[in-house]
Amino acid sequence: MVDDTGALPARTDFSEWYNEVLWRAEIMDVRYPVKGLYVWYPFGFGIRKRTYALLRELLDRDHEETLFPLLIPEQEFMKEAEHIKGFEDEVYWVTHGGLSPLDVKLALRPTSETAIYPMYSLWIRSHADLPLKLYQVVNTFRYETKHTRPLIRLREITSFKEAHTVHATWEEAAAQVEDAVDRYREFYDRLGIPVLVSRRPDWDKFPGADYTIAVDCVMPDGRTLQIGTVHHLGDHFSKTFSITYEDRDGEQRLAHQTCYGISERCIAALISVHGDDRGLVLPPEVAPVQAVVVPIIVGKRGDEVLAAARRLADDLASAGIRVKLDDRDLRPGAKFYHWEMRGVPVRLELGPRDLDGGVATAVLRTGGPKTTVPLASAADGVRDLLVSAMQALAENAADQLAGQVRTAGSMPELAAALDGGVAVVSWCGEHACADRIEEETGGAVLGVEVRSDLVVPCEGACVACGRAGTTALIGRSY
Amino acid sequence: MVDDTGALPARTDFSEWYNEVLWRAEIMDVRYPVKGLYVWYPFGFGIRKRTYALLRELLDRDHEETLFPLLIPEQEFMKEAEHIKGFEDEVYWVTHGGLSPLDVKLALRPTSETAIYPMYSLWIRSHADLPLKLYQVVNTFRYETKHTRPLIRLREITSFKEAHTVHATWEEAAAQVEDAVDRYREFYDRLGIPVLVSRRPDWDKFPGADYTIAVDCVMPDGRTLQIGTVHHLGDHFSKTFSITYEDRDGEQRLAHQTCYGISERCIAALISVHGDDRGLVLPPEVAPVQAVVVPIIVGKRGDEVLAAARRLADDLASAGIRVKLDDRDLRPGAKFYHWEMRGVPVRLELGPRDLDGGVATAVLRTGGPKTTVPLASAADGVRDLLVSAMQALAENAADQLAGQVRTAGSMPELAAALDGGVAVVSWCGEHACADRIEEETGGAVLGVEVRSDLVVPCEGACVACGRAGTTALIGRSY
Repeated sequence: MVDDTGALPARTDFSEWYNEVLWRAEIMDVRYPVKGLYVWYPFGFGIRKRTYALLRELLDRDHEETLFPLLIPEQEFMKEAEHIKGFEDEVYWVTHGGLSPLDVKLALRPTSETAIYPMYSLWIRSHADLPLKLYQVVNTFRYETKHTRPLIRLREITSFKEAHTVHATWEEAAAQVEDAVDRYREFYDRLGIPVLVSRRPDWDKFPGADYTIAVDCVMPDGRTLQIGTVHHLGDHFSKTFSITYEDRDGEQRLAHQTCYGISERCIAALISVHGDDRGLVLPPEVAPVQAVVVPIIVGKRGDEVLAAARRLADDLASAGIRVKLDDRDLRPGAKFYHWEMRGVPVRLELGPRDLDGGVATAVLRTGGPKTTVPLASAADGVRDLLVSAMQALAENAADQLAGQVRTAGSMPELAAALDGGVAVVSWCGEHACADRIEEETGGAVLGVEVRSDLVVPCEGACVACGRAGTTALIGRSY
Repeated sequence: MVDDTGALPARTDFSEWYNEVLWRAEIMDVRYPVKGLYVWYPFGFGIRKRTYALLRELLDRDHEETLFPLLIPEQEFMKEAEHIKGFEDEVYWVTHGGLSPLDVKLALRPTSETAIYPMYSLWIRSHADLPLKLYQVVNTFRYETKHTRPLIRLREITSFKEAHTVHATWEEAAAQVEDAVDRYREFYDRLGIPVLVSRRPDWDKFPGADYTIAVDCVMPDGRTLQIGTVHHLGDHFSKTFSITYEDRDGEQRLAHQTCYGISERCIAALISVHGDDRGLVLPPEVAPVQAVVVPIIVGKRGDEVLAAARRLADDLASAGIRVKLDDRDLRPGAKFYHWEMRGVPVRLELGPRDLDGGVATAVLRTGGPKTTVPLASAADGVRDLLVSAMQALAENAADQLAGQVRTAGSMPELAAALDGGVAVVSWCGEHACADRIEEETGGAVLGVEVRSDLVVPCEGACVACGRAGTTALIGRSY
């Protein structure tokens, strides 16, 4: 579908690189005729499918999947005051059915608290019903007025995984928050994406939450991308929606809740953190194609080479490896370009000389010297290479992040650190100081209680006012 | 979540039975506060997930999955005249984003032709791009003014699988129609649901299609449910959306298209065709729980029995069987009721006497005498039972349909046949005769060119006018 010749901009020119790699690697088509809505190409969808299968696998350990309606009646949506204040500028409203106006306006969910919690109120009766841990993967909608960007800032978030849990006590909900954070770390570990976890400042928490823990990654240009949030909702929503349970003593009590979500920004992170000047670099677990076999046909032995390449591809496929044989009538260089762009972890080249030696030549997308794989045990060889590819990818990403996190002791140091990265500072916790930091450096307080091996505690004088402070993460965000 | 004591109405009282089984078996909650929108319980979602995994498996052989936006701008939606005429009364319109009216009204897709085909116009350039076979599984919306019913007539169809293919010639598109029909038959075979395939009369085809082949099943009350349609779109949409390709001779040609869909009505069919007075009866392939182990604790050997039951459940789980150990503090009868309602194919009872004999007592949800399974080879035993359960279920459904299809040679015979079933008649093909049939018997012409072993060709005089006719299927539909 895509004409994929021509060079990709260097990844140092990140914004251009990102836009170009999306269509050259057939992730998203941005030409859909509504701002902020995009089309998944089948190849991109293949990445999405496997990434969300992984996320489901982690949640299915102790959550159950479900599905609630998209449309929320106005009166339910308007019930929780803080919540509606946080979303009212961004909600799409359905006002007509056919040619007639509706009696009740319907909101396209921007998030599903107000769709789900009226049902939770019906479902939960007793302590024996708790904890309740459900999730769904759905499309959600935000009428974004800011600059939209595929996978990052959307009007239709096509792939919002949202979990909603209910607990007997505030403490149990707090423990669930920690559990969810751990689950999200595990998810990003499996994708080789190192993350920074922190508690958002109060003014930046989810509308209607007691507190919000956020998961950020750092993009190649040093700006952060929020790729997961976990909210302790306390009893705000259970008060509004009457979610109560009878405890062991027969008393009615308000339940305590959490919710946490990950959107297709996880795919944006996957593309951006791992990609390079030649295109995508995909973790094998989510790569639609894990290995490509390219026959190198020179001289008279074309048929023999092609037959051997076909056998090799068949062997790998039987072993459960997602493999493509590229037998198109193109120069090998054009094929290499094509599959490198699409992030295929392992390329196997097979020419007459390889065939004589009983091997295929192997090239990892993550780099390093060429190696060989014996044709007689190709599947084992490729499996080992996939493990190496994953290691290399995760190490590269960890090194990259290590180079992007800097400690800053003064405002000028902070401004310098934010040029291409995030900064760790001491901050007193005052909103006024956060505002001053933002005005002078363009960086926002992302959070406190930062969890990362890369972050050295920084307990000195507040970088803005000089009073006593604690460690805070400062960044410019997408 | 659900209080599941009390009796289910008999299935002969189908409408009541259907409404009750949906909540008693935890498929859907109908209490969501918008007409025509329902909530999937986790158990129901588990059936949906596995059913759609099967559908995807069949399509993934030679289709690719993708995802297009929900919102369609008014001007695209209004392009194809017949199509819009077919849908204009049923479309939900988004008119506001936040507090402001939108410049362009956005339709919630009732189906995605007008979202997808503008992109196909960009994607398809040459004969080498054809055939193109994509599908998506999405939520679609219809502002139904008729009586709504969970899984059957919805305002949000939560699970619409729609495929859209593009071909060089009309004939290739016609061949794709046949291929899609075969795929759908295979899908319903795997679910043990016998279907009737026919070509819809022209006035009942998809708006904008050359012709429509439909897949119907017959519900226990004799009414038919359309559970799949396949449309030959000819070049209607390719003209409207300029989907052209360059052929081998360098000429620009209009492409030919098909589309075909299955919604969550497949789940309604699954529930209704197989269910009985005790609840669901599920095909093992899509059953969230394939086997339940119920310890029968009498006398002093409770701990021993419970430990053995746990080992049995673990053995089955390790062998990949979806098993539940029901160790709740309830009478065995209450547990039997619970799992029968949820359609679990195999129940294993384990009491002291079974334990002494080294076996578990096995009961199939499809009926038949109790058998035993040796504990030492339980997984093999249960696998065999699941195969038997599937056979029994498919045979029961086939027998049921055989009893519901009757040939009728006169209007009185036709009226009698429609009482609890569908009828095969001879029909001249005239709309006026179809109208007369409907007026006099309440049955509509479902289709001609009927494909079913159960349907004997019926080539005599038209049941309405007496002129020469051909075989037609008549039914009362949901």
